[in-house]
Amino acid sequence: MKKLYVVGIGPGSQERMTGEAVEALRKSEILVGYTLYADLVRDFFPDKVFVTTGMRAETERCRRALELSAEDKVVSVLCSGDAGVYGMAGLIYELSSDFPEVEIQVVAGVTAALSGGAILGAPLGHDFAVISLSDLLTPWDKIEKRLRLASEADLAICLYNPGSHHRRDYLQRAVDLLLETKDGTTVCGYVRNIAREGESACVLTLRELRDVQADMLMTVFIGNSQTVRIAGHMVTPRGYPLDEKKKLF
Amino acid sequence: MKKLYVVGIGPGSQERMTGEAVEALRKSEILVGYTLYADLVRDFFPDKVFVTTGMRAETERCRRALELSAEDKVVSVLCSGDAGVYGMAGLIYELSSDFPEVEIQVVAGVTAALSGGAILGAPLGHDFAVISLSDLLTPWDKIEKRLRLASEADLAICLYNPGSHHRRDYLQRAVDLLLETKDGTTVCGYVRNIAREGESACVLTLRELRDVQADMLMTVFIGNSQTVRIAGHMVTPRGYPLDEKKKLF
Repeated sequence: MKKLYVVGIGPGSQERMTGEAVEALRKSEILVGYTLYADLVRDFFPDKVFVTTGMRAETERCRRALELSAEDKVVSVLCSGDAGVYGMAGLIYELSSDFPEVEIQVVAGVTAALSGGAILGAPLGHDFAVISLSDLLTPWDKIEKRLRLASEADLAICLYNPGSHHRRDYLQRAVDLLLETKDGTTVCGYVRNIAREGESACVLTLRELRDVQADMLMTVFIGNSQTVRIAGHMVTPRGYPLDEKKKLF
Repeated sequence: MKKLYVVGIGPGSQERMTGEAVEALRKSEILVGYTLYADLVRDFFPDKVFVTTGMRAETERCRRALELSAEDKVVSVLCSGDAGVYGMAGLIYELSSDFPEVEIQVVAGVTAALSGGAILGAPLGHDFAVISLSDLLTPWDKIEKRLRLASEADLAICLYNPGSHHRRDYLQRAVDLLLETKDGTTVCGYVRNIAREGESACVLTLRELRDVQADMLMTVFIGNSQTVRIAGHMVTPRGYPLDEKKKLF
């Protein structure tokens, strides 16, 4: 019986992977992943066998990884960003009851909320919510409810999957919802192609964000009521102004 | 003028740092941090000068780092977990207007929501909120409001700073609030001392969580309505049961 690693590879460049993730891939004979993510690590691990599948074949891909592991191969499942956050770790566990002999090890990675956040400054310096705008596996009314309540809670919000060819106006719909509770001048930001060719970032207002065309390789950040713009960066302070008495520094 | 790195060092062991973080520390002459975090990396970088301050001296610490950088030293500010999430990146930017010559680079790291999540399984596999129970810089009523709304939104929730000597019953108060909207059987989990000596994890129900004594080195996970327990792990699936028609795999 061999270990099955579910590995968060971070945003895409090897230096943004943890040592633990690099080590798991090194130890593996077979790397299983979505074609695009496999391409991100192929150059660093040219001697590995890659098993790749298309974007929506997650179940097939994870089952294959479990099968290979049960056949005594050392296998890593590649996840963009973190292994858990919208990653494959959950699905691997869900399918694992058919493969009781496989030992699973999840290896955390830097998810886009963090890697994109580092580029923008510190957009998630206080309590925050991470919400995906993809309604492939989640009813849209549930997504709307989450956006409304997260906004009402004054959480900073990080949006994953803000748009695609088939969901061209989803970011706009989300911003319209947020504008019901948030000020149009709320500081926001977005990053495209984190750690990849064509990386770019922008800090702007919520009102301006409404007119941005989102795509799949974009991560969006909505500030809370305290978020400020400092020298082109997006910064959410770690707290709220408190009574002088409570100020300890 | 030298770069000032604000570095997320992850949960504490070198193999959980990204290559970029290791490189930033290697390039630095001076590492500035809270005593406990400095101790986590001291063994890996014995030749560095360490400037350490106590727990609540964040502003003093960050100002010192900016001053040293302005004096042409290469400096890294050490942050446990990520540099942005409850980290020093925001404070460094807030203080940076007095040091316009310093170039700041934020280096993301694996925050406890991810490193702890990997140990438990996949507690944050779908939309989630990260909320700190520390009321040092945030009024408690704001924390309560966030817990209520995040729970109503059926977000998975990760709690940071769930308790300390001075806040012994905060986790219990938070759980009591969550029990107003969530079922007592909701799958939860917690991890203590992530990647450090004495690391331990537990999966339990929300009702059971109420009786757990929290401390500063603990991260708590509250499931959403779909979260399940699989072979001792905590797993939040990536979606909701949908109409057959929408099922693509």
